[in-house]
Amino acid sequence: MRINWGLIGGGEGSQIGGAHRIASGLDGAFRLAAGALDVDPNRGRNYAISLGIDPERAYGDWRQMLACEKARPDRIELVTVATPNSSHFEISKAFLEGGFDVLCEKPLTTTVEEAREIVRVAKDNGRICAVNYGYSGYPLIRHARAMVARGDLGRIRVVMVEFAHGHHADASDSDNPRIRWRYDPMLAGVSSIVADCGIHALHLATFVTGQAIQSVSADFVSTIPGRQLEDDAFVAFRMTGGVVGRLWASAIAVGRMHGLTIQIFGEKGGLRWHQEQPNQLYWTPVAGATTIIERSAAGLSPEAYRASRLTVGHSEGLLVAFANIYADLAEILLSRKAGIAPNPMAWSFPTALDGLEGVAAVHSAAASARAEGAWVDLPTG
Amino acid sequence: MRINWGLIGGGEGSQIGGAHRIASGLDGAFRLAAGALDVDPNRGRNYAISLGIDPERAYGDWRQMLACEKARPDRIELVTVATPNSSHFEISKAFLEGGFDVLCEKPLTTTVEEAREIVRVAKDNGRICAVNYGYSGYPLIRHARAMVARGDLGRIRVVMVEFAHGHHADASDSDNPRIRWRYDPMLAGVSSIVADCGIHALHLATFVTGQAIQSVSADFVSTIPGRQLEDDAFVAFRMTGGVVGRLWASAIAVGRMHGLTIQIFGEKGGLRWHQEQPNQLYWTPVAGATTIIERSAAGLSPEAYRASRLTVGHSEGLLVAFANIYADLAEILLSRKAGIAPNPMAWSFPTALDGLEGVAAVHSAAASARAEGAWVDLPTG
Amino acid sequence: MRINWGLIGGGEGSQIGGAHRIASGLDGAFRLAAGALDVDPNRGRNYAISLGIDPERAYGDWRQMLACEKARPDRIELVTVATPNSSHFEISKAFLEGGFDVLCEKPLTTTVEEAREIVRVAKDNGRICAVNYGYSGYPLIRHARAMVARGDLGRIRVVMVEFAHGHHADASDSDNPRIRWRYDPMLAGVSSIVADCGIHALHLATFVTGQAIQSVSADFVSTIPGRQLEDDAFVAFRMTGGVVGRLWASAIAVGRMHGLTIQIFGEKGGLRWHQEQPNQLYWTPVAGATTIIERSAAGLSPEAYRASRLTVGHSEGLLVAFANIYADLAEILLSRKAGIAPNPMAWSFPTALDGLEGVAAVHSAAASARAEGAWVDLPTG
Amino acid sequence: MRINWGLIGGGEGSQIGGAHRIASGLDGAFRLAAGALDVDPNRGRNYAISLGIDPERAYGDWRQMLACEKARPDRIELVTVATPNSSHFEISKAFLEGGFDVLCEKPLTTTVEEAREIVRVAKDNGRICAVNYGYSGYPLIRHARAMVARGDLGRIRVVMVEFAHGHHADASDSDNPRIRWRYDPMLAGVSSIVADCGIHALHLATFVTGQAIQSVSADFVSTIPGRQLEDDAFVAFRMTGGVVGRLWASAIAVGRMHGLTIQIFGEKGGLRWHQEQPNQLYWTPVAGATTIIERSAAGLSPEAYRASRLTVGHSEGLLVAFANIYADLAEILLSRKAGIAPNPMAWSFPTALDGLEGVAAVHSAAASARAEGAWVDLPTG
Repeated sequence: MRINWGLIGGGEGSQIGGAHRIASGLDGAFRLAAGALDVDPNRGRNYAISLGIDPERAYGDWRQMLACEKARPDRIELVTVATPNSSHFEISKAFLEGGFDVLCEKPLTTTVEEAREIVRVAKDNGRICAVNYGYSGYPLIRHARAMVARGDLGRIRVVMVEFAHGHHADASDSDNPRIRWRYDPMLAGVSSIVADCGIHALHLATFVTGQAIQSVSADFVSTIPGRQLEDDAFVAFRMTGGVVGRLWASAIAVGRMHGLTIQIFGEKGGLRWHQEQPNQLYWTPVAGATTIIERSAAGLSPEAYRASRLTVGHSEGLLVAFANIYADLAEILLSRKAGIAPNPMAWSFPTALDGLEGVAAVHSAAASARAEGAWVDLPTG
Repeated sequence: MRINWGLIGGGEGSQIGGAHRIASGLDGAFRLAAGALDVDPNRGRNYAISLGIDPERAYGDWRQMLACEKARPDRIELVTVATPNSSHFEISKAFLEGGFDVLCEKPLTTTVEEAREIVRVAKDNGRICAVNYGYSGYPLIRHARAMVARGDLGRIRVVMVEFAHGHHADASDSDNPRIRWRYDPMLAGVSSIVADCGIHALHLATFVTGQAIQSVSADFVSTIPGRQLEDDAFVAFRMTGGVVGRLWASAIAVGRMHGLTIQIFGEKGGLRWHQEQPNQLYWTPVAGATTIIERSAAGLSPEAYRASRLTVGHSEGLLVAFANIYADLAEILLSRKAGIAPNPMAWSFPTALDGLEGVAAVHSAAASARAEGAWVDLPTG
Repeated sequence: MRINWGLIGGGEGSQIGGAHRIASGLDGAFRLAAGALDVDPNRGRNYAISLGIDPERAYGDWRQMLACEKARPDRIELVTVATPNSSHFEISKAFLEGGFDVLCEKPLTTTVEEAREIVRVAKDNGRICAVNYGYSGYPLIRHARAMVARGDLGRIRVVMVEFAHGHHADASDSDNPRIRWRYDPMLAGVSSIVADCGIHALHLATFVTGQAIQSVSADFVSTIPGRQLEDDAFVAFRMTGGVVGRLWASAIAVGRMHGLTIQIFGEKGGLRWHQEQPNQLYWTPVAGATTIIERSAAGLSPEAYRASRLTVGHSEGLLVAFANIYADLAEILLSRKAGIAPNPMAWSFPTALDGLEGVAAVHSAAASARAEGAWVDLPTG
Repeated sequence: MRINWGLIGGGEGSQIGGAHRIASGLDGAFRLAAGALDVDPNRGRNYAISLGIDPERAYGDWRQMLACEKARPDRIELVTVATPNSSHFEISKAFLEGGFDVLCEKPLTTTVEEAREIVRVAKDNGRICAVNYGYSGYPLIRHARAMVARGDLGRIRVVMVEFAHGHHADASDSDNPRIRWRYDPMLAGVSSIVADCGIHALHLATFVTGQAIQSVSADFVSTIPGRQLEDDAFVAFRMTGGVVGRLWASAIAVGRMHGLTIQIFGEKGGLRWHQEQPNQLYWTPVAGATTIIERSAAGLSPEAYRASRLTVGHSEGLLVAFANIYADLAEILLSRKAGIAPNPMAWSFPTALDGLEGVAAVHSAAASARAEGAWVDLPTG
């Protein structure tokens, strides 16, 4: 009854792999049935077996996995791609073309063209390509989106997002291989902190406002000698429905642990939410007092209730947010099998279009930064 | 490879049942192999099957489950008892005597005598009887305990604990059956808010200080007409190592969502932690500035690292705390099977002795309250 | 046009003296016209002159000040008594009998009998005897009182107050003369932390609820060797209108800077306020969401507006709260001179009756603590 | 002994006038000796007299005040200019030329040329021209500056400042004359929210880092129909010592009361401070835990101690910050009279050079915004 699920990447010691396994299993809907977990085939197979995967489905690489799974009657129904960024495109494309639904880690691809291709391939093959902007799974983020959608804030004027941390602030760490590659354009592409973290904040802006990013003006700086890519950035943007956006992203903001924050200001009121305290949403109607919306409190939107597992006051964290992406996918996959319509709220997970927009925003911001902040239109327009 | 796990109670619609299923499955160590989930046999069986339990292990009641599981070669290795409080004793005792390890919801029993009996039965049968004081699974609570144990605070002087919420503050709710029984001594026993919530705070006090509660003086009040048991309480206590304790528990503290808080003050410094923001612990050395200890930050105790699944800054909530109780049990059960010694840190989960102490503290507090606050020694002394 | 004001005590280096000078002068209503500022006559006179007091009114002691001021046509109209506690009674009584209005620091006296005598003397002489429970001057405390008075919370069920700090937690400080005397009954009387800090919290409870304290049950402990008086206390109390009260006071709560907090829970909602963030008041209606009431926000009670000097968002601190006590007194003194009725809201400052209640509560709590927590009725009943 | 002080503007009902009277009088160093308080001569005179100013020094306008005060032997020694912005230049210049020391409200002038002129006139006449960037008077802002100056943070990389409020978010308020003029370039000049609020945040950036702003790139938007000037702005900037700056300023950020915030990130650590909680400063050393620096705590810099009036834990607010500007000026004026050197720390108040920099930054930001964010060098370079 559980959905057969496959994982690519996320080998031993990987945090993101562990998070996907927990999130996919949280509600008991998925079963880790197959995996190609490591770039080293033996290590990957052994780890897969240690996780309880049937040895014949503990694959040495994703190509083998694709070939074998396609041939199985009990083939996996969803595959998660949690490999290094540069391989997202090739793997996701191959699985989509192979008829599998895919959940790809962000960023979807490393170029806009590739992202466009993924969007096309998913559509042509009638497959789901989800993208793991996991923060969008938080119940109160979904409530914020519902509030905006039903008009509580009126027309949105400004959205301010931040993703500031200080975990790359230590200059003596510059030879640390876990950090160094992130600032090397040969390995990380056109952007570091915006591509790595800012992209989540930008997605939240689009997710909550329901508008796409249209143009950007960026100021990128690299504050530590030896770094070629930005470790601190400021990005102004405009959205398709007229919203004015502002992003601050930083990896050298010492003292900020995980400063993912969104503030949305509309003509009827404003909302504020911080990832480090995800169980509260602050809502202020124009000319009124601020109220604290608690996750699971009476009166919340159905979108928020559906995404919450505990009653009010019991803290829920990031793993539950991730699990909500999987819960959406499970709802859709199971409904499809049953030949019934899924709960429309299940279509809350981010898709390849969101992935494309993120990649496009990052590339456009990098181009703007190279042009001293000149406004650059997104190629998705 | 996964451990066969059984659940009693926690039927459809139950929050605690869902929390146990998520927590036990979070790390993939347990498999829900058997269950007697509902007082209504058919409803329980159907729900069990819907959760993927083999129909022949979807039992109509716990007695049947006990009899059948005992006879199976692949019998469950751990059973969780999540039934109404009055049946904890009978069920836990029967399973312990049947040779099963047990995780019982709190309170362990409804009388001190029963709790003593459980302690004895577990010992005589060489079985584990864990008690689900789930908040003790939070990584930073374990870090606080490690700090106390290694002497960072010096001799502990005072521990102040609170568990204040406002979810029973609406007098018009007094006929609500979900609330009413809690204040009826025929159904709830000698205490309401102290037995239901205060007991968790008292356990944290003992867990972190490493001392037992010795005597109590209590002031219980019932603030809503028709309630016979207390909905607000103040309890002074003394601990075996000389710590002075204070507890405030309330169910009518409107605006407090889930005010479980612990503050520990020693001769070298003080610690503060709030369940609604469980990822931060505040530490102040005497004559120094307060520092914010972040879950998963560099330099934390091994006890805290072991209990954390995400890197610093990513919020973790209550489900992870619960999962740590199961992770401890899994470590022990698997080590036992493998004939090796478990990580000594696995012995962090609360046991029947903690369950006994909680029941004794509640009963003594209720006795003190009836005696206008006269100090009462715990019968566990 | 400014009111002639006199100060007794508050000599060079005294924090409280500086606070009174700032608070009395903040709105320009009072002029420091006379003073006996120090137990050392010369030092007191010199300091007074340095503060701009006319040399002939820079007195060597309070008796001289009383005699001379009585004889002047431009005599002071209000005298503040900021001397060590043991002299409050004698000085306040003498000035009241001399026809002066008095603002006395807390505690009003060291015994209940003396406090009763002050109440009587003030009444017989038709004088004001105010007591400087300065925290009651905070605009949002006055708003909380107004909310309770107008019925927003319905019948009050429970009030929880705290005054916990850690400034006496260092055992190596025990010979520090600035701290040692506070725990010596010969110098400090029957109580230390409750008399020094808890009394403020108890006053807030009576000020906000509008009820008097009727009986108490206390648990006092002294956690540092050599201390005879309590440095940590828990006090349960009952109020005249049925409110149940709880107080925790501590001087060894390392990490708490100035933990004066009040929470009021009624049948229609709850309020929370913390002195360290005095510009916000948290209000939760039963079955509703918490709202943050900002000082000076639109829609506040006239009592709160009147007590605030800056628009919303600009922080105001303790000196403004103190100044509000003086502003009340100025309003009354000026109205009296003008032969008009003062704004009724000016009668918000604490009086000798509040001073008496505080002294009685402290003595009763100490008596209860000596009797192992037995309930003790206040002699003010 | 008190310093004769004069006030221009700040008439009846003006908040800023009241704040200056309180701040100047807080420590008893200044005496309000003369004033031209209102554009309406009679109203101004009457109000001055009601405040206790000698009728012959209750002037009808500032020209009369200048002429008469120059002729008096007991002439005022400091004059505060708190008139509408457009008259700051003319009045300040005239009084400086008349030999008076001046404290001018921000912005110092409405054009860069005028600000340059004020700097020159002050210098030529050997007069102090202070500018009331009052937030720089907060003790912990001074401590942050001291920490940067003594190298605790190492080289500063990034400073992030915000001043976001929501008090102009109500579109139905657009005809409110108190708000409308702020968005009309004829009355408010080239900028609204940046000139009004952002300028404070920019000053804090320069004050704390000790560097000047060199160039800016700005994105201004006006979100409410009918407004010609910006009500939300994002400004990137570079400072003379290489610091990268970011500013977000907003008047439509509903729910933000007074969001003045500064974060400074250096190679050795980071600092964070929020005006709504001014008594705490958050400090995080690279690779260490965050510590909470409390105002008045042991071990603070002498700059911070000197600026604080209460012991740790007692909240201090904006009026004390303002008073510190006056305290600096008093120290200097009194030392000059006494022919001694003032405490060097007294030179902490902002001067005309800071005023010039603020005006230049605002004009350059406005120019950049008109040029679609092109980088603009400040004319002060």
